[in-house]
Amino acid sequence: MFQFSINKNFFLQALNTVKRAISTKNAIPILSTLKIEVAAEGITLIGSNGQISIENFISIDQENPGLVIDAPGSLLLEANFFINVVSSLPSVELDLKEIENHQLILKSGKSEITLKGKDSYQYPRIQEVPTTNPLLLETKVLKELISETAFAASSQESRPILTGVHFVLNDQKQLKTVATDSHRLSQKVIQLENVGDHFDVVIPSRSLKEFTAVFDDAIETVKVYFAHNQMLFKSEYISFYTRLLEGNYPDTDRLIPKEFNSQITFNVASLRQAMERARLLSNATENGTVKMELKDQIVRSYVHSPEVGQVDEELETIHLVGEDLTISFNPNYLIEALKVIKAEEVELSFISHIRPFTLKGMEDDHLIQLITPVRTN
Amino acid sequence: MFQFSINKNFFLQALNTVKRAISTKNAIPILSTLKIEVAAEGITLIGSNGQISIENFISIDQENPGLVIDAPGSLLLEANFFINVVSSLPSVELDLKEIENHQLILKSGKSEITLKGKDSYQYPRIQEVPTTNPLLLETKVLKELISETAFAASSQESRPILTGVHFVLNDQKQLKTVATDSHRLSQKVIQLENVGDHFDVVIPSRSLKEFTAVFDDAIETVKVYFAHNQMLFKSEYISFYTRLLEGNYPDTDRLIPKEFNSQITFNVASLRQAMERARLLSNATENGTVKMELKDQIVRSYVHSPEVGQVDEELETIHLVGEDLTISFNPNYLIEALKVIKAEEVELSFISHIRPFTLKGMEDDHLIQLITPVRTN
Repeated sequence: MFQFSINKNFFLQALNTVKRAISTKNAIPILSTLKIEVAAEGITLIGSNGQISIENFISIDQENPGLVIDAPGSLLLEANFFINVVSSLPSVELDLKEIENHQLILKSGKSEITLKGKDSYQYPRIQEVPTTNPLLLETKVLKELISETAFAASSQESRPILTGVHFVLNDQKQLKTVATDSHRLSQKVIQLENVGDHFDVVIPSRSLKEFTAVFDDAIETVKVYFAHNQMLFKSEYISFYTRLLEGNYPDTDRLIPKEFNSQITFNVASLRQAMERARLLSNATENGTVKMELKDQIVRSYVHSPEVGQVDEELETIHLVGEDLTISFNPNYLIEALKVIKAEEVELSFISHIRPFTLKGMEDDHLIQLITPVRTN
Repeated sequence: MFQFSINKNFFLQALNTVKRAISTKNAIPILSTLKIEVAAEGITLIGSNGQISIENFISIDQENPGLVIDAPGSLLLEANFFINVVSSLPSVELDLKEIENHQLILKSGKSEITLKGKDSYQYPRIQEVPTTNPLLLETKVLKELISETAFAASSQESRPILTGVHFVLNDQKQLKTVATDSHRLSQKVIQLENVGDHFDVVIPSRSLKEFTAVFDDAIETVKVYFAHNQMLFKSEYISFYTRLLEGNYPDTDRLIPKEFNSQITFNVASLRQAMERARLLSNATENGTVKMELKDQIVRSYVHSPEVGQVDEELETIHLVGEDLTISFNPNYLIEALKVIKAEEVELSFISHIRPFTLKGMEDDHLIQLITPVRTN
């Protein structure tokens, strides 16, 4: 039966990290608990929803937690309730002691709270990924890859593979990241600083979004490990496991056009605002599209809703070459695409009104995005 | 058919004020619109949900709106949609022009948006309250009265009169404000600076909360007018109408005890935190109560939940007199009561474990609160 004392604020921070893997709506009731494992060298907090598992280790050698261990052991506690109780305690000094029948006594200031826990043997075995031969990635770079691609993954389960982001490492250093929901696509290709072995995996976009929330910017690098159907992102104290999606990711390379008939350069912010206006009215139309018209060196956007009204405006352009064109598309895809472009200017490149068009931030050859038009009459 | 130009940001601010009265879920579809009335001297924006109506006048004499009127008229527009469209416009200069078939053209920068409106004759007649003989109140004082009492009103419609706050003006200057949901009560009595005629009304607490949101602190005073079943709060540019609740408010004066057997003074923050801890566990008990025990000059709080555990703690007290006592109550009522006490210390006064106890901030004789205990075995 374990016993330890710890700084409340540090403990809470670790609890909230692990909580990100825990869902109260899980079909497996035991997964609403978190596991505390107390050993001589430190404590490990564990949470899982079956898809993602997070382990946060706190060492007796760390200074801030002020962790002192009196006896080892392990216990399961209802995660949300336990975290609420810990955060309600009056003092930053916290003593935790397991007593008979898997109960836990928390002492802090003059408060004494006794909570009923569960036997840790009930907790399922967490994913295991062999930690050999890691790929070393900068957290900042990885989070940027995620924010630039994961939004384009599908949120619908009709084609499960499209709910993931495709990560491929070629030539030991070239990392390609692609997501598509079949209406739009976002692909980023970068050269890594460290070499790694070839891999080709599809990571659930939801897991990647949680990864972004868990690994804060203070964690400079993560080690990445792959196993058959799962992977592990590991920093000094945090291990983040996720299942991988099974199946073949579609060949997206062939979708990306190389030659175009018209190209327009816009200011990112002003195009985005114009599309937000268009979206207000396109939301009230049957096919939800905006019409963009390039004619006589002028670009206009146009939406007509029989119910609510119409918007008609000339779009400011910075540069413009090629053939006249009228193309319809969902303004929401363009808005979301523009959100991840860091440059001030964006180039839209068109082949025809029935072929996908591409977006690229000026002076950015790493990120390319694709939007499929909607055929209208 | 009206035509005017106005500063977008000022116009939006007025639109958002009026929007507070407008519900999209109203049973009367026309109440999801807002009315724009354009006259020679300015424009009036009007919104209503049948219970509350708000009119915001913008004058051509005000400097900030930059209002220029070219033609008068009036029109109804879908409130939420119209506000979203206005806020999406690119330039701060905004031209609005009514055209045929109740349509409105908005021009801003290079954008031109046409919206379908409705004939203003379809809009219901707004409440009318004669504006004679006003009671002049400081906005700050009125908002304080509301925040200290309205939370104690009932949120349940089983006794509609208890969903309101009872306002009574006696002796021309003594304003009494009371709310109770029959489990707890909050009463504030103040002396007004300006005299007024006697009134005795019950104002829906929901209306008062909206009043607080609409009248910001820049509005120093409001004039208050009463009619048969409605009232009006009026500042220079804003008129806020609300229906009154009909029926007799219970006689609450007789509920408030004057003599006590035990009195305990606590620090407000530390008592509140202790009750928040107790609530975590009392939420998991059958009757949802915490037990407070005064014995041998020590005060303890105690909750036992067979499912999740127990809390047992000694409460810090500042002063303590009277008989020993054990009393059970819903900690949520005490937490909400403590939230509105501005003093650092609070005095709880008890008669017995079956009689309501009172709360008073130290050196505050204006605000008194009452909490009814729960009988337990």
